[in-house]
Amino acid sequence: MYGSTFGELFRLTTFGESHGAGLGGVVDGCPAGIPLDESIIQKELDRRKPGQGGVASTTRKEPDQVRIQSGVFEGVTTGTPIGLFVENTNQRSHDYSTIKEIFRPGHGDFTYTGKYGVRDYRGGGRSSGRETVSRVAGGAIAQELLKQEGISVYAYTVELGGIPAEVIDYEGSTDREYFSPDPDAPAKWNEYVSQVKDEEDTLGGVVEVRATSVPIGLGEPVFGKFDARIAHALMSVGAVKAVEIGAGTEAARKRGSENNDPLTPEGFLSNNAGGILGGISSGQDVVARAYVKPIPSILQEQRTVTVDGQETFVMIGGRHDISAIPRINMVLKSMLALTIADLLLIDRRLGRTR
Amino acid sequence: MYGSTFGELFRLTTFGESHGAGLGGVVDGCPAGIPLDESIIQKELDRRKPGQGGVASTTRKEPDQVRIQSGVFEGVTTGTPIGLFVENTNQRSHDYSTIKEIFRPGHGDFTYTGKYGVRDYRGGGRSSGRETVSRVAGGAIAQELLKQEGISVYAYTVELGGIPAEVIDYEGSTDREYFSPDPDAPAKWNEYVSQVKDEEDTLGGVVEVRATSVPIGLGEPVFGKFDARIAHALMSVGAVKAVEIGAGTEAARKRGSENNDPLTPEGFLSNNAGGILGGISSGQDVVARAYVKPIPSILQEQRTVTVDGQETFVMIGGRHDISAIPRINMVLKSMLALTIADLLLIDRRLGRTR
Amino acid sequence: MYGSTFGELFRLTTFGESHGAGLGGVVDGCPAGIPLDESIIQKELDRRKPGQGGVASTTRKEPDQVRIQSGVFEGVTTGTPIGLFVENTNQRSHDYSTIKEIFRPGHGDFTYTGKYGVRDYRGGGRSSGRETVSRVAGGAIAQELLKQEGISVYAYTVELGGIPAEVIDYEGSTDREYFSPDPDAPAKWNEYVSQVKDEEDTLGGVVEVRATSVPIGLGEPVFGKFDARIAHALMSVGAVKAVEIGAGTEAARKRGSENNDPLTPEGFLSNNAGGILGGISSGQDVVARAYVKPIPSILQEQRTVTVDGQETFVMIGGRHDISAIPRINMVLKSMLALTIADLLLIDRRLGRTR
Amino acid sequence: MYGSTFGELFRLTTFGESHGAGLGGVVDGCPAGIPLDESIIQKELDRRKPGQGGVASTTRKEPDQVRIQSGVFEGVTTGTPIGLFVENTNQRSHDYSTIKEIFRPGHGDFTYTGKYGVRDYRGGGRSSGRETVSRVAGGAIAQELLKQEGISVYAYTVELGGIPAEVIDYEGSTDREYFSPDPDAPAKWNEYVSQVKDEEDTLGGVVEVRATSVPIGLGEPVFGKFDARIAHALMSVGAVKAVEIGAGTEAARKRGSENNDPLTPEGFLSNNAGGILGGISSGQDVVARAYVKPIPSILQEQRTVTVDGQETFVMIGGRHDISAIPRINMVLKSMLALTIADLLLIDRRLGRTR
Repeated sequence: MYGSTFGELFRLTTFGESHGAGLGGVVDGCPAGIPLDESIIQKELDRRKPGQGGVASTTRKEPDQVRIQSGVFEGVTTGTPIGLFVENTNQRSHDYSTIKEIFRPGHGDFTYTGKYGVRDYRGGGRSSGRETVSRVAGGAIAQELLKQEGISVYAYTVELGGIPAEVIDYEGSTDREYFSPDPDAPAKWNEYVSQVKDEEDTLGGVVEVRATSVPIGLGEPVFGKFDARIAHALMSVGAVKAVEIGAGTEAARKRGSENNDPLTPEGFLSNNAGGILGGISSGQDVVARAYVKPIPSILQEQRTVTVDGQETFVMIGGRHDISAIPRINMVLKSMLALTIADLLLIDRRLGRTR
Repeated sequence: MYGSTFGELFRLTTFGESHGAGLGGVVDGCPAGIPLDESIIQKELDRRKPGQGGVASTTRKEPDQVRIQSGVFEGVTTGTPIGLFVENTNQRSHDYSTIKEIFRPGHGDFTYTGKYGVRDYRGGGRSSGRETVSRVAGGAIAQELLKQEGISVYAYTVELGGIPAEVIDYEGSTDREYFSPDPDAPAKWNEYVSQVKDEEDTLGGVVEVRATSVPIGLGEPVFGKFDARIAHALMSVGAVKAVEIGAGTEAARKRGSENNDPLTPEGFLSNNAGGILGGISSGQDVVARAYVKPIPSILQEQRTVTVDGQETFVMIGGRHDISAIPRINMVLKSMLALTIADLLLIDRRLGRTR
Repeated sequence: MYGSTFGELFRLTTFGESHGAGLGGVVDGCPAGIPLDESIIQKELDRRKPGQGGVASTTRKEPDQVRIQSGVFEGVTTGTPIGLFVENTNQRSHDYSTIKEIFRPGHGDFTYTGKYGVRDYRGGGRSSGRETVSRVAGGAIAQELLKQEGISVYAYTVELGGIPAEVIDYEGSTDREYFSPDPDAPAKWNEYVSQVKDEEDTLGGVVEVRATSVPIGLGEPVFGKFDARIAHALMSVGAVKAVEIGAGTEAARKRGSENNDPLTPEGFLSNNAGGILGGISSGQDVVARAYVKPIPSILQEQRTVTVDGQETFVMIGGRHDISAIPRINMVLKSMLALTIADLLLIDRRLGRTR
Repeated sequence: MYGSTFGELFRLTTFGESHGAGLGGVVDGCPAGIPLDESIIQKELDRRKPGQGGVASTTRKEPDQVRIQSGVFEGVTTGTPIGLFVENTNQRSHDYSTIKEIFRPGHGDFTYTGKYGVRDYRGGGRSSGRETVSRVAGGAIAQELLKQEGISVYAYTVELGGIPAEVIDYEGSTDREYFSPDPDAPAKWNEYVSQVKDEEDTLGGVVEVRATSVPIGLGEPVFGKFDARIAHALMSVGAVKAVEIGAGTEAARKRGSENNDPLTPEGFLSNNAGGILGGISSGQDVVARAYVKPIPSILQEQRTVTVDGQETFVMIGGRHDISAIPRINMVLKSMLALTIADLLLIDRRLGRTR
């Protein structure tokens, strides 16, 4: 799993940079016989675009039309690898002279240069958030596999700029601004985001992901635990700085008598475990949260150094989102779907002889 | 990485149950020429044993003598796989009738049975914390590799039962009770632990891990990011319910102008990023925290079900630790060391042509 | 390595079918800083096309223009994944009714249907030889990496239709018909091929691959031996039915005193080992041979069954090559290059601490 | 698959040297619920020992008692990793001064030293044929999984020192000397082996492996083809220099009209394909052959160099087998079983949605 491939049986390999020819991916290991066409993937990509972002997202136009290049025949998957491609149509020939010679604070410019010696300085290249287009496209296919098993996945905003959602109606979140589980939160968030925008700053927040109707038995002890895979999956998304499962950070402050989830003939009485015990799914909802840092590109002058190590200051221009939320929600949902699709395939035979 | 192997080039494969013949592992991919003998590994295993645990750990005697079974010749590694084995000497022939027929709350009993159909009910089997003996043994070898590169790793307790350490002297933590970075914290923790013990309950806490002198360039974008690997590594340890990097959960409440780490010719001015930008190490200390849930085995009657789904109550007897901390610290440190050893080997050629 | 990805550190993932949108691939793990542009890859693809095939290849026009979609910036690789795509421009809207309902003998029709339930019946789909376009494109990049280390690879025809080459001038083979190492062989082969063509039949042959200037030390005992990887690599090419290393099948008929390669201060006196001892390269030329079966599509009526299991006869029309040689030579050379590129990256750190 | 792990879902990781503490392995990914105890594995190990070797094998006593260290509880596998260990009891404290300072021709001494810088010079260390003890132990477990699916595997000698078996009664081969499929061959082979032994030389030969009742659908195009995996598996065994599938090398000399296997409603009319079409099993017997080189340790003086590169001559003393056959047969059978076990697990979900 070094580099550009995610998963072991259901595998997504991605490529592409923000200002190159486009973004693409290969889904290998998808079983045959699953109905699939471009419109199914397109629908997910469209949700990643501005519109549901309240005032936090720019209105930059990115058509992001996906093209299936292989692996589907007469409307169903054939078991062969599914090639995906989304052309970059919006890369104007910017003047990159400002950022070519400096390292933007909070971005990967410094470390990419340190690692590779060369760097595609046009808008972040591979380290741009635009890389996640491939994840959403792959995640859309994973979700089609999950559907076959009756599993649904959600990603909804539970906190933005420190302001929490107070109701968790996750099923309703899909159509609300910010993918909000609380009908009243978007108004509050929009107000605060507008204020922060005026102050030329950016915001972080917290996204909860959830999978329902997950069968008992997913996850491979000891290093391939379900929760370890979720942590990997969500933390691999650029802006995420913390991941928690179930009660998460709060579990560290509880006592054993509070944190244990009692079992009854009707099921568990609580879900502090987040649907995972001993690294294996318990049949409860799988629940995790990703903590998202504020976008590092701000309309303020920042202290940094040139590629030659000289002190300088930089002001990053252009229109930028105020928060990675809610665009990142689609990405986090995709990563959860990819993780579960992979585990479904692995478990079916490793669990036991059936 | 499904199952019992961790890592891609520096790989630890483990086996063993709490009440079987013993715990073991195979380290494959360790370069040749590294000085190694059993005493080096034994020293790490000994630190996992009670003694540094304040009043939180039992005094159960586990000699845990490691035996190197291959891969070392005339005092150095040969590049061939290193077999490790620690015999279980302390498994008395308990009466397991109490737990054989029920699922213990907060343990993997329910999910292992659901997944595999059979379960080694003697003390948790593979899902027992005792499994981590193999991780510590493998981690000791990883640390020898890190030494060759000048890298050190630490794991120290920054919070126990909600009570924080107030000083972060991590270099001094190695010899203190609870691997405490604060000379004054162990006294407070011991007092609180004693009280909770009297109340027949257990506690969680927070462990910070740190690697110093990490070279720039470790980590493989986009799915093999350094932080994603750390999240995977730490979350794969049984009791961990959340992982954060650098500012972690707090980053979600900061603004961009606060969270960005300014660069200067003398280096970064802060380390909210936790030493990782764009998934690649920046040369700063790599800093992460693991949130550890309270031990689920408590001396109280708990509601649960039998393997046949009938309602019942269970009281788990025996002497148990009050907290997984500080034993788990050695395990978390090992996982960090294994992660870095692996990335060191991967990076050396993938970074660039040198 | 199940499915569509080859390699562990230098990894090629491919996709595409003979009659879909096109063929593509992703090379992940290529170090940064290697000069690369489309013309370098195109040159290899062009050699796969008819022209050097004597009378054995059809003259079907396949422009096969490759497009690099990512991973290259300002003329060099950036360390990020290299996306490749070759559009299918020649798929006329054939009438597939003949082969849609039957299984062609010697093809994968029967087994693909058995495995996947569905099948892209247009010209073989994923099981078509056209799939190898992606391998040649990826192999071209691998060869650029090998060049940095001074390694060259060759694939030349040593036997066609049972008629052997009698001279092994492999350096001269590159520009001869059939990639022949013998200046006189092409004339003999052309004559025999013409005769077999008139008889509406097809031919197999033997291709030798060779790598020169291979450093000592490539290969990872015990399962990742260099020779095991070559066997895997070459046998993964559709028409290959046997692979041998060095003396190969002949070694089984030699005595130990004949087969051992004596060492002298000036080097080995013979190369029965094919440049590999104990699974590790010895510094001699690495030499292997692939035995290629005759093309199964013949202009004769053949006995087979329909998809419903009914007896039938089929005559496969269209223009087909008489032999997979010499087109397959480019593919076999690519597989050797990919194998060595991967091992170069793996060895650099696993060998020893340097 | 670099190094010491074979397989992807059913995975064997091995360790150990000929003159270290012992040989061991970990089987990870074995489904739960399969009956297993030490006697099942021991039976396979015992067949690897001298006795069935005719006069070709030494009578060196190797008790080779296997111990299961984990993964089995109450007589069945639990789904957790199965630890295996066989102690070395026969390593007398030899005088290794003869071979410590020189490189034995035909052995891995030269390349191990070149790769790792250090070498366990006692009897070959990791490159000794004794390494295969772990493979046979792991293969025994794989065979128990195959049994559940009704699949049987065989490995029988079809040629020794150039003398072929003339009858292929593979089912009867199990109990004959040399695992001979021909009741009359062992007498001929014994006579020739005795003669070669007197001449202080060694012999190679050819082993055919076969799997019966293989379901349709195993193998993952395009790089994970069934035949490519078999080639990898068999060629990873030390002495093997060539691998062929079905008609193998002979296919290269046949015409298409001869080589195609006609299909009928009752099945295929021939099996030139060796049970694999397009990399996927067809339901016919899977048949492959491994060409085994003569044992390099001969009782003759051989030309070689010292570790310092000086010319010298070496006479390797001690009792050695005259041929790797038939001991190697058990190893080759194990590798086939491991390959099929892995593919069975992979296929069950990748094939199609069922």
